[in-house]
Parts: sequence; C-alpha cells; structure tokens
Amino acid sequence: MSASTVAERPQQREPTIEEYGRMTPREVRQVMREGRFTLRTTRNVALGHVQCALVVLPKSLAFEFMLFCQRNQRPCPVLDVTDPGDPEPRRIAPGADLRTDSPGYSVYRNGVLEGYRTDIVDLWQDDSVAFCIGSNTSCDLALRRAGVQTERNRWVLKTNVPTEPAGPFHGPLVVTMRWLTPKEALIATQLTGRFPFNHGAPIHIGDPAALGCDLQRPMMGDPVPEIPKDVVPVFWACSMTPQAVAEVSGIDLMITSAPSKGLISDLESDKVCAP
Amino acid sequence: MSASTVAERPQQREPTIEEYGRMTPREVRQVMREGRFTLRTTRNVALGHVQCALVVLPKSLAFEFMLFCQRNQRPCPVLDVTDPGDPEPRRIAPGADLRTDSPGYSVYRNGVLEGYRTDIVDLWQDDSVAFCIGSNTSCDLALRRAGVQTERNRWVLKTNVPTEPAGPFHGPLVVTMRWLTPKEALIATQLTGRFPFNHGAPIHIGDPAALGCDLQRPMMGDPVPEIPKDVVPVFWACSMTPQAVAEVSGIDLMITSAPSKGLISDLESDKVCAP
Repeated sequence: MSASTVAERPQQREPTIEEYGRMTPREVRQVMREGRFTLRTTRNVALGHVQCALVVLPKSLAFEFMLFCQRNQRPCPVLDVTDPGDPEPRRIAPGADLRTDSPGYSVYRNGVLEGYRTDIVDLWQDDSVAFCIGSNTSCDLALRRAGVQTERNRWVLKTNVPTEPAGPFHGPLVVTMRWLTPKEALIATQLTGRFPFNHGAPIHIGDPAALGCDLQRPMMGDPVPEIPKDVVPVFWACSMTPQAVAEVSGIDLMITSAPSKGLISDLESDKVCAP
Repeated sequence: MSASTVAERPQQREPTIEEYGRMTPREVRQVMREGRFTLRTTRNVALGHVQCALVVLPKSLAFEFMLFCQRNQRPCPVLDVTDPGDPEPRRIAPGADLRTDSPGYSVYRNGVLEGYRTDIVDLWQDDSVAFCIGSNTSCDLALRRAGVQTERNRWVLKTNVPTEPAGPFHGPLVVTMRWLTPKEALIATQLTGRFPFNHGAPIHIGDPAALGCDLQRPMMGDPVPEIPKDVVPVFWACSMTPQAVAEVSGIDLMITSAPSKGLISDLESDKVCAP
C-alpha cells in the first residue's frame, strides 16, 4: 500500500455512544474487530439487538456444558453453538469471528482468572466450541419503550443458590438485580416473560436475602447501598453465571465474555419473543 | 414364593382410560414397567402432566443431537437428558427407568425401522444417553379447560420444511395439524404460547401446502380428508420430528418413542409455562 493510499484513508475515530446505539450489529463488530471499542460496557450499543455472553471450551467438554445449559435454562439460554473449530456463529451473527469480534474476554485457567483479552486468536484451537448465551441487556430497548428505566440501580450479584451441575460444571446462580418502582416491576415482569430464550420473567422479587445475594461484592462495581423504601428489587437469572461457574469448576481452560461486554448478534430482540 | 402367596395377590387387570386419566405419573409408569399398558396412545393418561418423546443414542452422538435440538428448539424442546449409562430421568421422573417405563419404542438401524418394542433393556448400553423432549399432548388439559377440543381432527404430518442439521442429524420438520374453529384457533395460539418449552405457539395457520404437508401419508392413521370450510388448520412443531430424522440420518442405532406413546413425566403442565 502506498503512502498516498494511507493518507487518503479517513481518520478512524471511535463512535460516540449515541452513534454506537444506532449502528448495525455488523458495523459494531467491525469496530471491535479493529480493536477500537473502548467503552466499559456494550449496554446501549446497537440498540434492539440480542447480546450474548460467550463461553469457549474444547469439544471434549462441549456436551457436558451444553447439558449444564439445558439444566440451567434460565441463566444459560443457548442461542447458538459453533461447530468445533469454526469461529463463526452462523445462525445469529453470520460473518462474525468470535475470536476477535467480541469486545472483551475473560480467560480462566483451573478456575483462576488469568486476565482479560480483547481477542483470543492465540487461544482458539482446532476443536474449540463457542456457546452464545442470551443476555438480559437484549430486552433494554423493549423495557424502555414500555416505560421501565434500565440505566440506573442495576447490579450483577452472586447468590447462594446452586446451579444444577453437569459433568464438571457447577457453581452459584448469578442474578441481575434491578430496583424498580412497583409499577415498573409489574410491567417488567410481564414484558420479560415474553422472552423465554433471554432469561424470561424474573426468578424472584423482594428480599435479596431469599437468594443469598452477595450485596457487598457485586460482580462489577461498588457494594449495593441500602435499599430505599419506595423501590422493589427484582431479580433475573443472569448470563454471567458461566463466569461464576468457571471460578469454581476448575476447568483447564475456559474462556467467557468479560463482564458487561457482550457479542452483538444480528437477532432483533423484538422478534425473539416468538422464536 | 409359596402358592398361597400367589393366590393372595389380587388379579392385575389393566386400568380403564378414565382410571389412567386420574392416575399419578408414577402409578402409570409402574403399569408400563409391568408390561400391562395396551392402549394405542398415551393421550389422556395422567392428565395434566408433561409427556415426553424419547431419543436414545450413544454418548458419541450426544453432543451432535443436543446441538440438533438447540437448533430446532420448536420441535425438540429438551426437558431432561440422562447421564451416560443412567436410565433414570432424575429431573422430570425420579425413580423411572427409561428402558422399561415408556409404553413403546421404535428401533431404527441405519435409518430403517427395525420394529417396535415395549422395552429396550437388551439395547441399552453403558454409554447410552436419553433425551426427553416435550410433547404437545402435555397441553391438552389446559386447552380443554380453555374450551378447545383436543380429541378429534388431529394429525401428525411430515412437511417439506428442512430442520437445521447438526452433525449427522437432519431431516424434515414434523408438525401436528389440528382443525379448530376460528375462536378455538385464537385461544389455542395464545394459550400454547405460554408453553415455550413444549413447542410453544403454532408455527403456521391456514394452508397446509405452505409447509408442504404430506396429507396423504400422516405418520399415523388414514389420509387427511378434504378440509371443511368452517375450520382453521393450525400447525405446531411436533416431537415426532426425531422419528423422521432417524429415517433419513442413517444412524447405526437410534431409538425413539413409538408413535403416540410418550413417557409420562412428573412435571405438571400448568407449572412448566413459567419454568
């Protein structure tokens, strides 16, 4: 490539959050592939599209993990599984490369978080299988349209409720807790029930102690403050459950999405309510 | 055992259909285990409980079949998967033995139906994995309570719509067609939509030709007569799809439920609408 060609190329600045919100999933994934995505979260990115948490495992563990997801359908609704060695999620994001097109990955070795990555090209094996698991950020636009705020008072918490094990996979259920007004809580319950393949309706409402929520150590951010009298805590099963499972299951190598960094699929959230 | 003990044992007659309807799943499975179940269908048996179609495969094909089910969630909603070699579906029918407690099995070798069995004790292997797939008979009681007849004008048909393949598994989608009044069709659509893990809402309504339904050769019974003007044909994905898949996929040994003969699980249909 000649110097003049380079000069002609427009400067590639990162889109603003408003621009990210209006971009197509394919456009956003391209930015991620080029390593230009620097936001802390994919929330509000390519609004109205289903976002997925990833899990990457060797083929030898794929059946057991699939079984884990079947036994824990609420936190782990599987929307796509790649063929061994194929990094393209052909059904939900054709053309995407799962090694580079997700904005962040957590790498666990023997249950220890080795670190975060922005690509997993060097970790991908000939027999790697990727699971794409629906995330509750997928419902944000639908909730907002229905008058339910989605920006504030939202935490991801470990519980003391065990998941149903399968093979080596076990660990605590992780939930998203949102503080809503009573009216919002009722609307959100009905609305999310229409998305059975995206965690569905809440699994609990009211006292966080009933699930044994760890309010002091959310999976991201600061401890949860005292709950005000005028809000209703509402709890959904969360697709960060595989990260908690990776911590305790001690798998040789298990890759998940980094917290709050989902794969942006081509699926339109409004359509998956009747898949 | 002495002759007198035998004489004291009450004569074991088969329950009537009305008695079957009121029996618990465990009681019904016991009758099946003893080989005393002779009805043509499990419809109306242990009413209000989820019935399942079975698929039994070696562990080596379990991941690919699980993937097939994930990619074809509407016809193949997986409700339980046994651990390799374990014939007990611990989550949906604890205490049951899948080798004997289902009233009929179809045995396919290389895509050819070898025959029907009432048990598969001799075919069960140390690495056999059984998949329990929700059947639409599970919704019958709920439909009836809502005023939708479920007894007449109901066929299981192959379509020319291909399923999404996975590994060696491929074949046509199978549907249940019911002829309903317009009012029944609208009620049934709303009601079955509440059961996303039991085939959910209809996949089609109206002209059977749109799905390429084979009206001349239903998977059971006589050809479909001409459709009267005052009924609406309504189509649900059907858990007999694995039988059509067994016919064309040419697996060495694939065992399914025999037509219309489901495993009676302990799950209450009314409860699985919000699993």
